[in-house]
Amino acid sequence: MNKQYLLTPGPTPLPPQVSLAMARPIIHHRTPQFQEILKEAGTGLKWVFQTANDVFIISSSGTGAMEAAVINLLSCGDTALVVQGGKFGERWTEIAKAYGVNTEVLDVEWGKAVNPQEIQKRLKSNPQIKAVFTTLCETSTGVDNDIAAIAAVVKAGPAVLVVDAISGLGAVDLKTDAWGVDVVVAGSQKGLMLPPGLGFITVSSKAWKLVEAAKSGRYYLDLRKAKKALDKNDTPFTSSITLIDALNEALKIMQKDGLEYIFKRHKTMADATRAAAKALGLELFAPTAPSDGVTAVKVPSGIDGEKLVKTMRDTYGVTIAGGQAELKGKIFRIAHMGYIAESDIITGLSCLEKVLTQMGYKFTLGAGIKAAEEVFLKG
Amino acid sequence: MNKQYLLTPGPTPLPPQVSLAMARPIIHHRTPQFQEILKEAGTGLKWVFQTANDVFIISSSGTGAMEAAVINLLSCGDTALVVQGGKFGERWTEIAKAYGVNTEVLDVEWGKAVNPQEIQKRLKSNPQIKAVFTTLCETSTGVDNDIAAIAAVVKAGPAVLVVDAISGLGAVDLKTDAWGVDVVVAGSQKGLMLPPGLGFITVSSKAWKLVEAAKSGRYYLDLRKAKKALDKNDTPFTSSITLIDALNEALKIMQKDGLEYIFKRHKTMADATRAAAKALGLELFAPTAPSDGVTAVKVPSGIDGEKLVKTMRDTYGVTIAGGQAELKGKIFRIAHMGYIAESDIITGLSCLEKVLTQMGYKFTLGAGIKAAEEVFLKG
Repeated sequence: MNKQYLLTPGPTPLPPQVSLAMARPIIHHRTPQFQEILKEAGTGLKWVFQTANDVFIISSSGTGAMEAAVINLLSCGDTALVVQGGKFGERWTEIAKAYGVNTEVLDVEWGKAVNPQEIQKRLKSNPQIKAVFTTLCETSTGVDNDIAAIAAVVKAGPAVLVVDAISGLGAVDLKTDAWGVDVVVAGSQKGLMLPPGLGFITVSSKAWKLVEAAKSGRYYLDLRKAKKALDKNDTPFTSSITLIDALNEALKIMQKDGLEYIFKRHKTMADATRAAAKALGLELFAPTAPSDGVTAVKVPSGIDGEKLVKTMRDTYGVTIAGGQAELKGKIFRIAHMGYIAESDIITGLSCLEKVLTQMGYKFTLGAGIKAAEEVFLKG
Repeated sequence: MNKQYLLTPGPTPLPPQVSLAMARPIIHHRTPQFQEILKEAGTGLKWVFQTANDVFIISSSGTGAMEAAVINLLSCGDTALVVQGGKFGERWTEIAKAYGVNTEVLDVEWGKAVNPQEIQKRLKSNPQIKAVFTTLCETSTGVDNDIAAIAAVVKAGPAVLVVDAISGLGAVDLKTDAWGVDVVVAGSQKGLMLPPGLGFITVSSKAWKLVEAAKSGRYYLDLRKAKKALDKNDTPFTSSITLIDALNEALKIMQKDGLEYIFKRHKTMADATRAAAKALGLELFAPTAPSDGVTAVKVPSGIDGEKLVKTMRDTYGVTIAGGQAELKGKIFRIAHMGYIAESDIITGLSCLEKVLTQMGYKFTLGAGIKAAEEVFLKG
């Protein structure tokens, strides 16, 4: 018997209602039936994005939605400030460069959150900056940035704030309108409990002025087309009907739970995972700004980090994530994002204890589980 | 009781194996398990595209794959010849213009196929043309273009031939390598019997030289990134795992049937539909080059075409397509593409007869069904 558990920061496990929705017969997208689905999705997305503005659905990976942000806001020769504290911060820079946007990079040590004062300093010293690109949960390092504080700094000036919330939306709080975030980008396969294949983007009225003015070539990702279609409760192209139908199932579950409960649940899972890691004598990679969506843990010396992840997955059916890029083999990441219950965390930690023991790492067997249970008992 | 039947040219109905594959638990994409799925998809796609070249999978609508063709082959200021005989030919022009590509438009009367000699003439008179953009099945008019003859004309010169086979691939023959087609673009929701959400593109070595040289901004749709990833049996971004898994189910069904049988089956369905339309005294919109994927029929005078389509769908559960753009209300389209059996055609035609009668159109009740049955009996 080999039950499979997915504890990765995207894709995340799917609730059965979501999986079964995708097995429903497909319907045509230019029908009143699909318009109902789109309308429901629009309302639900505004709720989860905490915004009164439209949330556009793009049939693409999250990266497609990130690209939509760059090319709809900026033109070749414009200047952007990019907060770069991990692989996904770097992606903003790569996309901007691919379109001839000048990037001023604010390098943040991997494992640390950005200091909002640094952003303020850069904005003051370079008034050319039209947009600030940052990341809610930097999945590659397990860091949550303080978007509220960043927004407070950016909204005072002319630049717009763009947040990659692909990882984090629906897991940690992001008060788009209340904090004054201009553009939020998300993907389907993380906190929203769906398979990958949908990207989302919402745009404030301040940022929409840039959309109207931008000169970048764009067609499939042109938000002006998306808006024109959405105003008629439609999509500009044949969209991922099945995934949008499933999105409504996921949103229904989330709306029943409420955002407050969802964020609290993620925090509890994260607290339990962090407590367990410490009880096992392991070190968190991002102790000062640990994400409630994913916990990055340093691989202890003498242990082969890649083998650890591989053994948990291929021998025991528990898929966690290793480190990416420069962190390959140096950290492992346990996600607690989306459809993750206490039972999943216990299973993942137990498997971790088992494989660490087999690999010769010394600790008190059961200590991680005990620490997690203590957190769960407090609730 | 209201059974639903989908006879639209995308999305098309899904085989139960495909639907159920999407209800399977999701797996992570950076695993040996998903690499197996990708490998199988790659082999199956080469088979259905009839090419030895890589077929890249893009998580997007078909239009995303069309845009990938334009921006990977051409740069701002380059010249393209676009065959424009319907809504989807026009889309090539729109995308090219969005990226500053000069378009020479070869206008073809809607409902007619392009004359390959006209393409030859244009290529001779304008040696600046770097790429010819055309359409296999122009869904908006129900026309199949003669790609073999077009390829014979284009391959002699320096320009590359790009075929939008979003509608048509897996329904009508397209011998990519044997005919010398350089770039073929497809989508998931037509002949491939999947939901929308995947785009596909294959590129010949002649066209790959343009990919290397093109200067258009590109990131998400950058085929150089796609190739680099595919060479390691990977995708550049988190792709639509669920749809790719389902793709393999669809490809398995198709491979069991064989291309020859599949194309013959589509021809039989098309012959039956066309024979039925004529027997009802209706006129085909594209009599000289009718598609085997979708049949466009003129709405008879005195009949409200939009009401016809709406009644069939909302009262009787049979969804066919109306006309698009300038053909709105003037034609209706019955698709026989993908997972469509004789029973679906009979159901669709019977519903058409019923609603036409209710709307006051005069004909011998049952005449359409009889004509279709005669075709089916011949097999």
